[in-house]
Amino acid sequence: MKMLVLNGPNLNMLGTREPEMYGTQTLDELMAELIAYGHERDVVIKVLTSNFEGELIEALHQAAGRYDGVVFNPAAYTHYSIALRDAVACCEVPVIEVHLTDITAREEFRATSVIAPVCHAQFSGGGIASYKRGIDALIDS
Amino acid sequence: MKMLVLNGPNLNMLGTREPEMYGTQTLDELMAELIAYGHERDVVIKVLTSNFEGELIEALHQAAGRYDGVVFNPAAYTHYSIALRDAVACCEVPVIEVHLTDITAREEFRATSVIAPVCHAQFSGGGIASYKRGIDALIDS
Amino acid sequence: MKMLVLNGPNLNMLGTREPEMYGTQTLDELMAELIAYGHERDVVIKVLTSNFEGELIEALHQAAGRYDGVVFNPAAYTHYSIALRDAVACCEVPVIEVHLTDITAREEFRATSVIAPVCHAQFSGGGIASYKRGIDALIDS
Amino acid sequence: MKMLVLNGPNLNMLGTREPEMYGTQTLDELMAELIAYGHERDVVIKVLTSNFEGELIEALHQAAGRYDGVVFNPAAYTHYSIALRDAVACCEVPVIEVHLTDITAREEFRATSVIAPVCHAQFSGGGIASYKRGIDALIDS
Amino acid sequence: MKMLVLNGPNLNMLGTREPEMYGTQTLDELMAELIAYGHERDVVIKVLTSNFEGELIEALHQAAGRYDGVVFNPAAYTHYSIALRDAVACCEVPVIEVHLTDITAREEFRATSVIAPVCHAQFSGGGIASYKRGIDALIDS
Amino acid sequence: MKMLVLNGPNLNMLGTREPEMYGTQTLDELMAELIAYGHERDVVIKVLTSNFEGELIEALHQAAGRYDGVVFNPAAYTHYSIALRDAVACCEVPVIEVHLTDITAREEFRATSVIAPVCHAQFSGGGIASYKRGIDALIDS
Amino acid sequence: MKMLVLNGPNLNMLGTREPEMYGTQTLDELMAELIAYGHERDVVIKVLTSNFEGELIEALHQAAGRYDGVVFNPAAYTHYSIALRDAVACCEVPVIEVHLTDITAREEFRATSVIAPVCHAQFSGGGIASYKRGIDALIDS
Amino acid sequence: MKMLVLNGPNLNMLGTREPEMYGTQTLDELMAELIAYGHERDVVIKVLTSNFEGELIEALHQAAGRYDGVVFNPAAYTHYSIALRDAVACCEVPVIEVHLTDITAREEFRATSVIAPVCHAQFSGGGIASYKRGIDALIDS
Amino acid sequence: MKMLVLNGPNLNMLGTREPEMYGTQTLDELMAELIAYGHERDVVIKVLTSNFEGELIEALHQAAGRYDGVVFNPAAYTHYSIALRDAVACCEVPVIEVHLTDITAREEFRATSVIAPVCHAQFSGGGIASYKRGIDALIDS
Amino acid sequence: MKMLVLNGPNLNMLGTREPEMYGTQTLDELMAELIAYGHERDVVIKVLTSNFEGELIEALHQAAGRYDGVVFNPAAYTHYSIALRDAVACCEVPVIEVHLTDITAREEFRATSVIAPVCHAQFSGGGIASYKRGIDALIDS
Amino acid sequence: MKMLVLNGPNLNMLGTREPEMYGTQTLDELMAELIAYGHERDVVIKVLTSNFEGELIEALHQAAGRYDGVVFNPAAYTHYSIALRDAVACCEVPVIEVHLTDITAREEFRATSVIAPVCHAQFSGGGIASYKRGIDALIDS
Amino acid sequence: MKMLVLNGPNLNMLGTREPEMYGTQTLDELMAELIAYGHERDVVIKVLTSNFEGELIEALHQAAGRYDGVVFNPAAYTHYSIALRDAVACCEVPVIEVHLTDITAREEFRATSVIAPVCHAQFSGGGIASYKRGIDALIDS
Repeated sequence: MKMLVLNGPNLNMLGTREPEMYGTQTLDELMAELIAYGHERDVVIKVLTSNFEGELIEALHQAAGRYDGVVFNPAAYTHYSIALRDAVACCEVPVIEVHLTDITAREEFRATSVIAPVCHAQFSGGGIASYKRGIDALIDS
Repeated sequence: MKMLVLNGPNLNMLGTREPEMYGTQTLDELMAELIAYGHERDVVIKVLTSNFEGELIEALHQAAGRYDGVVFNPAAYTHYSIALRDAVACCEVPVIEVHLTDITAREEFRATSVIAPVCHAQFSGGGIASYKRGIDALIDS
Repeated sequence: MKMLVLNGPNLNMLGTREPEMYGTQTLDELMAELIAYGHERDVVIKVLTSNFEGELIEALHQAAGRYDGVVFNPAAYTHYSIALRDAVACCEVPVIEVHLTDITAREEFRATSVIAPVCHAQFSGGGIASYKRGIDALIDS
Repeated sequence: MKMLVLNGPNLNMLGTREPEMYGTQTLDELMAELIAYGHERDVVIKVLTSNFEGELIEALHQAAGRYDGVVFNPAAYTHYSIALRDAVACCEVPVIEVHLTDITAREEFRATSVIAPVCHAQFSGGGIASYKRGIDALIDS
Repeated sequence: MKMLVLNGPNLNMLGTREPEMYGTQTLDELMAELIAYGHERDVVIKVLTSNFEGELIEALHQAAGRYDGVVFNPAAYTHYSIALRDAVACCEVPVIEVHLTDITAREEFRATSVIAPVCHAQFSGGGIASYKRGIDALIDS
Repeated sequence: MKMLVLNGPNLNMLGTREPEMYGTQTLDELMAELIAYGHERDVVIKVLTSNFEGELIEALHQAAGRYDGVVFNPAAYTHYSIALRDAVACCEVPVIEVHLTDITAREEFRATSVIAPVCHAQFSGGGIASYKRGIDALIDS
Repeated sequence: MKMLVLNGPNLNMLGTREPEMYGTQTLDELMAELIAYGHERDVVIKVLTSNFEGELIEALHQAAGRYDGVVFNPAAYTHYSIALRDAVACCEVPVIEVHLTDITAREEFRATSVIAPVCHAQFSGGGIASYKRGIDALIDS
Repeated sequence: MKMLVLNGPNLNMLGTREPEMYGTQTLDELMAELIAYGHERDVVIKVLTSNFEGELIEALHQAAGRYDGVVFNPAAYTHYSIALRDAVACCEVPVIEVHLTDITAREEFRATSVIAPVCHAQFSGGGIASYKRGIDALIDS
Repeated sequence: MKMLVLNGPNLNMLGTREPEMYGTQTLDELMAELIAYGHERDVVIKVLTSNFEGELIEALHQAAGRYDGVVFNPAAYTHYSIALRDAVACCEVPVIEVHLTDITAREEFRATSVIAPVCHAQFSGGGIASYKRGIDALIDS
Repeated sequence: MKMLVLNGPNLNMLGTREPEMYGTQTLDELMAELIAYGHERDVVIKVLTSNFEGELIEALHQAAGRYDGVVFNPAAYTHYSIALRDAVACCEVPVIEVHLTDITAREEFRATSVIAPVCHAQFSGGGIASYKRGIDALIDS
Repeated sequence: MKMLVLNGPNLNMLGTREPEMYGTQTLDELMAELIAYGHERDVVIKVLTSNFEGELIEALHQAAGRYDGVVFNPAAYTHYSIALRDAVACCEVPVIEVHLTDITAREEFRATSVIAPVCHAQFSGGGIASYKRGIDALIDS
Repeated sequence: MKMLVLNGPNLNMLGTREPEMYGTQTLDELMAELIAYGHERDVVIKVLTSNFEGELIEALHQAAGRYDGVVFNPAAYTHYSIALRDAVACCEVPVIEVHLTDITAREEFRATSVIAPVCHAQFSGGGIASYKRGIDALIDS
């Protein structure tokens, strides 16, 4: 199987960004761990990270035919990007929304996901384990 | 007359995207029909489609002097892009907001347009006919 | 084709009513212009204007079989008459909601239409041009 | 006993109006069934149906002295007519609010009745059976 | 001077209607007291009472040229009739909104007047004295 | 026919509980009157009363196959027990929601029923008569 | 008769304060006109103006026994001073709330009066005429 | 490892309950599949299902010392049981909230979990796969 | 005198539960301290602790005749159990609501008590001292 | 010990003010009873009563060093005086908020205390007993 | 130039008041630093500090003619004193609103300033530097 | 020192855009004035202007190490870009939010900044002076 892991805004700053909340591992380190996890489970993982809403939209448009599913961490766009919601809705392969932290336990505006209603499933909390659960779920589906 | 038709995010997926709601015609087919309609009414139509909020903003900035008016379908940005609202507000040619579907008859968050208050007029529902009404309105204005 | 143009409360006061917002043309003048426009496009237009919610409801009940569509300006009833909404919903010919002004750019309570979700399309702003677009849309549909 | 059955806006369209929700029986057929039901229970039923808020108000004003109670389906006026609420409040015979459908299970705006707080009882759902329950309740009261 | 006193829905039931709130005087008795008060102050008063929103709208349309001002008790329509608001807004003589009771001290929905923002002044509480204050205010204005 | 009458929390206190609102009859007296009413109409009535949300849920689970319908007074649980709502939704016999008092005419939080949208009908106000109407409605359905 | 006219915060700045809204007359000039008006109607008027919530509260406490009523313009305190509301509520002579401008036609936060529900009547709009109506109303009461 | 799988109200009705949403497998079948999945991953699973909020609370109280973690589907209690939230908060082993369906894509009241903010992670959508992801996550943690 | 001390959900976990907020004393230790305090003041205290809403409801039903008053800590049920509110309302001995912590200084949803409006008094903050104040208040009442 | 009892606006009117709610005892009588109660418990009580927010703020500023604690009835200021909240927050001795009546059982705006979150405890209902509980609580703390 | 620096409630407690948020410098020390800063920039600074809303209002009334501008920290009054808003609105010299802390990053009720809309500018965060920026801004204006 | 001045969407249109609100100076002219101001104060200023949210995010990511601070005018993104908020939060040099106009005095949606809570300070109103204050503040910090 082949899967796309799509990372939204500011995730490229992991390791530096608020380490008390997100830990000290960089995004590269976390993605390496995830690729290894995929390898164990016979999944080839492609990672794409962008701070641009438009690039994330287009990555979703192009996922069908190339990947068997998408593990998507929309980061801050989770809470307001209806454009990304629509991009997920017109994506023909399953999309799993994941978050490193428990978004319901932070500021109130982070408790709402405008994207979740059109995703196949939503996994949040537990750090990189959420991404792994996303990989597991796509294998199962 | 010369007019700009500006299409927002995910409209490039028409035909594929939720065809039960948006029909099976592609954006290219719809735009071809619109250009022909313009031709009949002596209007030269330029089409610009982007998933990037920034590109749509800049297209509006550059419209004055090049076009006599803009027919703008902001798609999902309709509901939250105050940046596009401000871009319309500083646009010196009339801008008509159009929607393929009746946005008031879908999810509640789609009933609000943050852009409409600064547009010349708003036409929604009826598919590509809304764009044609936009062309008609710019001819009249 | 034969169409009904239905005007709601206070529209009989056009010309006198807040001319800085609605212009100085009377309703009769505007309707004459509209009838002429219909004539050009081979549409026979019947105009009915009432301040009574009940009369507007009954005009919608009787439209099917007599007209090919309705261009309806519910005026102030737009914002609260669920009875008119239900009358539109049970009308068997297409109904287009039109407004002379951009209702989203005025007082906040005018931004909501309880009727729009059951109309075929909604055209607002641009004065009598909105009605013309309604005529165009009914021809197209 | 003598009872008034009062029907609000658009109910005259039953049979035609959204039959998937309201069924294919006309109001006349339903009222005939109700009158027969009243006959069985020794109740003379007078039916009055109007699309005009003012007529419904005045029917309530004139009910005392003529009828022993009112079975009232305010239809769309249920949700906003404070004038009808006040008319019920000053009515000296008991008024039972009835609805053909379960108004709480439809659009959110239909879940609120501004009239219910001043009625003797409210029966909704189950079609014409709600009216029959209203007749039963007035006999009991 | 000549003034129109315009009474809205259910006011014709005064004396009967919730006498613990509105007293036991009928509308005719109150209006007779008001006409006498006008007489003392050289004002000819015409009274018009209707339960129909449409009739009240048209009375306001026809007030200019016939009366020097209007004392208007919109009763229940106060809280939702945007159509009456618009009728007041296009009335060319001053309109004073009056209420027999203190509408802010009753149910919460009665605390809001959609009509007040376009009236010349608003007097509420104190029974028929509010109408007298309306007469006084029109004399002064 | 066989019907279950299900009573929620605090109803066992009737007669004692706020008698100015609920009257001085005990629940046993009211249920005896209801059973007699059922007897007249050839309906065998089983009464189950519980203060435990879990017990009410399980009574609804077990109703199918044993009863032809349920008359359910959820009492205070009406306003927040989504668990009971789900239990009604998965109940295969019709459930009628009933209330002794007019719940819309009391504290604001009592005006909302989270259960009504999944019931067959809702009858409120008029005391034990509401239960009788529930019995009537189940016979009819 | 003897009446207290009580003026709240910033009213001492009249004439200077936003003259396009409040006119160019000073408070002294307006009060002189009011005292003269009282004189004509055999009312002795005492004026007290304060920017201190505490002073206004105590003036209301001391009004009973000294005055036959109070004409009170709470100015900005209208919208939040529950302490003044309570002071009016425990005042044993009638209190009339008055405003120079139509408070419902300005910023939204000015549309609510926390004091009105405990006043005898509320008169707003029309400048000093509102105060005169307050005097008239106290004479009548 | 040893884990507790805790199921809330109405889940015992799976297979029967709204099969178009929850599928036709019974809870026993799903739990058997989950126990087998645990077996593969060297996890002993104990299942506890209750319709009683109190029993679920006490199961959480007793989990520490007996299990290495809890996979908890609070079902309808998700949306209002602050008591369960507090029980999770004082549970000394990690608790994962799971849902069979995507709760954000159903009625609006189901989009909020009062329990999620105190859980270790939340997995929703995808049927029994959510529970499996919960097992995986507890192994990882 | 004889008093019932009623403890709601999760209070049995005190000492273990979030000790940084609730301290390290167990419920048994706190209740022993309270019983001793009662002893000093000639009050016999019976303690009842339950995680079941239904058991708490029934304890309140049975309090009259057995106790002179109830000191009630509804814990999490404070914020949503209208059933407990109704149980307090029909309790014929005075009920004092108490809380160990200052519930207004924690999460926003804890600031509201649906039970307080029907209690004799509410004491919160200060740990077990709140219960002692409840005992004092019942002696005084 | 030495304690300050601080009374907010309109409390000086007790006995006169709405006696059906607050009783017929004057503030002096209640304070005398409280001072006697303090005497019994070896507490010297100083009473300060003011209608001025500023004076109450400054009394709180000066409490540290002079008193061992403050029993504070903010009266109407409870609901909006963030300035008093801040004054309590910077007070170095414990402050107990007390109310004569159950503020949650009156108008909705009285249910919120902006001051409670920074107080040591809050006691409401039961008349002067609340103040006594405040004294008790300060002795205990 | 001559400027007034106006400090609102509780600012006189700086140094003592919540030092973890406001630092350990007293108001006198901060004002001395500010006066020195003014001296460097040829500005004579007068400081006025009050806990009384009325005194702050009157200081603003008297600023015109005496000062070239006002640097105003309304402290807690920021969030509710419409009276201070009106006082700023009628002040004829520019007023700059300043805050020591970032008011948007604290409790939600501190994020709103009712005064800011009528100020010349608003500077918040960064401690005494905000005041210095206010001085700079008045020099520039 | 070295500082980054970051300008958000539509600011490149200054001079043309709504000149009655923003003045007739172009962004280049304003930035030239700012660079000169920096020069006077020994600050080297780099200006970056973009209509793309993604570019602004990345400029903030790259600021640490290159600049001593950032003066940021997020323009329309102020009101909804949580992505920019997160970018500011992970920026290791101080960021000052600035606005040319008083954003609290315009449309209601402009009164809220989702970015301010994570900035070092916020300066608004007074045109380019706000930027200068930002420079001053960074020098001070």
